[in-house]
Amino acid sequence: MSRGLTVSIDAMGSDAGPGVVVAALARSTVRHPDVRFLLHGDEAVLRSLLGRRAKLAAKTEVRHTPESVRMDEKPSQVLRRGRNTSMWRAVEAVANKDAELAISAGNTGALMAMSMYQLGVLEGVNRPAIAVLWPTKRGQSVVLDVGANIAADAGQLVEFAVMGEAFARAILGLERPTVGLLNVGAEDLKGNEAVRAAANILRSVNLPIEFGGFVEGDDIAEGTVDVIVTDGFTGNIALKTAEGTARLVVHFLRTALRRSLMARIGAALASGALKTLRRKLDPRAANGGIFLGLNGVVVKSHGGTDAMGFASALDMAIDMARAEVIPRIVADLSALTQITSSEAAAS
Amino acid sequence: MSRGLTVSIDAMGSDAGPGVVVAALARSTVRHPDVRFLLHGDEAVLRSLLGRRAKLAAKTEVRHTPESVRMDEKPSQVLRRGRNTSMWRAVEAVANKDAELAISAGNTGALMAMSMYQLGVLEGVNRPAIAVLWPTKRGQSVVLDVGANIAADAGQLVEFAVMGEAFARAILGLERPTVGLLNVGAEDLKGNEAVRAAANILRSVNLPIEFGGFVEGDDIAEGTVDVIVTDGFTGNIALKTAEGTARLVVHFLRTALRRSLMARIGAALASGALKTLRRKLDPRAANGGIFLGLNGVVVKSHGGTDAMGFASALDMAIDMARAEVIPRIVADLSALTQITSSEAAAS
Repeated sequence: MSRGLTVSIDAMGSDAGPGVVVAALARSTVRHPDVRFLLHGDEAVLRSLLGRRAKLAAKTEVRHTPESVRMDEKPSQVLRRGRNTSMWRAVEAVANKDAELAISAGNTGALMAMSMYQLGVLEGVNRPAIAVLWPTKRGQSVVLDVGANIAADAGQLVEFAVMGEAFARAILGLERPTVGLLNVGAEDLKGNEAVRAAANILRSVNLPIEFGGFVEGDDIAEGTVDVIVTDGFTGNIALKTAEGTARLVVHFLRTALRRSLMARIGAALASGALKTLRRKLDPRAANGGIFLGLNGVVVKSHGGTDAMGFASALDMAIDMARAEVIPRIVADLSALTQITSSEAAAS
Repeated sequence: MSRGLTVSIDAMGSDAGPGVVVAALARSTVRHPDVRFLLHGDEAVLRSLLGRRAKLAAKTEVRHTPESVRMDEKPSQVLRRGRNTSMWRAVEAVANKDAELAISAGNTGALMAMSMYQLGVLEGVNRPAIAVLWPTKRGQSVVLDVGANIAADAGQLVEFAVMGEAFARAILGLERPTVGLLNVGAEDLKGNEAVRAAANILRSVNLPIEFGGFVEGDDIAEGTVDVIVTDGFTGNIALKTAEGTARLVVHFLRTALRRSLMARIGAALASGALKTLRRKLDPRAANGGIFLGLNGVVVKSHGGTDAMGFASALDMAIDMARAEVIPRIVADLSALTQITSSEAAAS
């Protein structure tokens, strides 16, 4: 049973154009029949795209916006001049309670700035983070921050841990997800000041978090812990390095399987299995960066993705809105604030 | 034609014991018949291992050391109490000109500290870096720093660029390798202060370096540039994330190929191709972190590797000593110092 929700969509953010976005919504209506859509963008274009999809059109309201955000615009620019863009209006609908969540495939920095400005940051959060679901040997893990911030101090890393843990409980359905801090070694003395201080806080403060200590880069794919916490610079580079490596291995595999007649016959016989592998590695299946720490649900889809990728990001956004992750984060952060302030008073 | 060289080896550094090290040397004598070995470690153990290998024994001098460095020892500890260890003596032989290069599979931090102390750091180098060869779609690239330092300022990143470029010229045989700075986006405004300032220096200073600007995590496996420069925290996490991802993809592939009878038959027919893939992805083939910026050649082999992996690291060390990378680095760094100081005087 799916509960009625309204999704607010920046239709003009995708590199591939609004056609991909509308095709993704058409997919989504099958999976989520009760969901309604608020579509922001060029009305003439969107009406023509909806013309061929009567079922989708019936649950979609188009709101015309004359402008859109360019990929090379700076967040400070779009905050000043971006009020008439499809991205601004998509987030505004969540702020106005016209929609439960917003999604865009546009400029990440602009989307974060607009979301912070319009929705506000939760109490106890210094900076929001972007979280992704990462495929592992054991299933999926949550990794954050993958690029909202360039750096993070110890307090921010602890906030990311709290937010990521609440997200993992809700989305992965785990009762007590384990949390690790990404570092260059598992020993206590390794790493920079921020990760060591964050580990001390997570160990000493009496939070209801299953802290697994430091983890290394290869622990992410192993699934050693359910939530991996890092700063946005390292997290972004780790994520893209993993994407590049997966593509490289598939490239090597494809080259090897073309080399001889025997290999080509083998590949043909194993084509079903190889298709399963491709599906497992399909970046579209795990598409979507969730903004955590905002007073509202905002999801960033990859700009270069197709309808299937956009639909995956949308699925995750709907799951997050339904699971009511934000109230959980608010409760956990307020517990963190109480514990740290009472411990500070006691010492 | 191979020129006579002497390699100094810490025989006690491998997790798998000195047997692996001696087996690796036996392999190496086939490929490098003119190379001689200085083997540091427990004499009784090493003599017994050499007993069955007369050819290797004939070109190997065993130097007894009563102690070895433990994996959990801090660099500061081993500098104080480590003079009787096999690792210390292995590096000392290079300092004394008894050998052209040293190799160890032991504690990385201890090896770097001992190497800096005994060999000294090249003029113009603030901190040495650890470089690795990384498999890409186009061949191999050099990535540094993968863990010598926890952070790097702009000046250090520029030094890494100079050292990595000289290394790539020598080892990859490229006339003008391209150099990129690892960042979270390709735009000029992205990234932290250090990478942006380093990019400014690499762009403005008239160095003979083909600077390709910022690259992202997925550019490493693409082979977009030949040398990727980053700080040791990010580089270490990127390297281990890539290793973990490659293992994950192979795990998915193996699981998929076992699923059905057809897939198993296909896999059997394609077994030659799958073996090629395994060889391409074999971490032992690209084993070895090269210490750059020291007045001597020191290579760290992975502690958990086998004889083949240790032999790969040894091959790279021999290549580096033969290619006379250090004089090239010295010349390039002195050019950098002259340019930056004359430009500072002019402005």
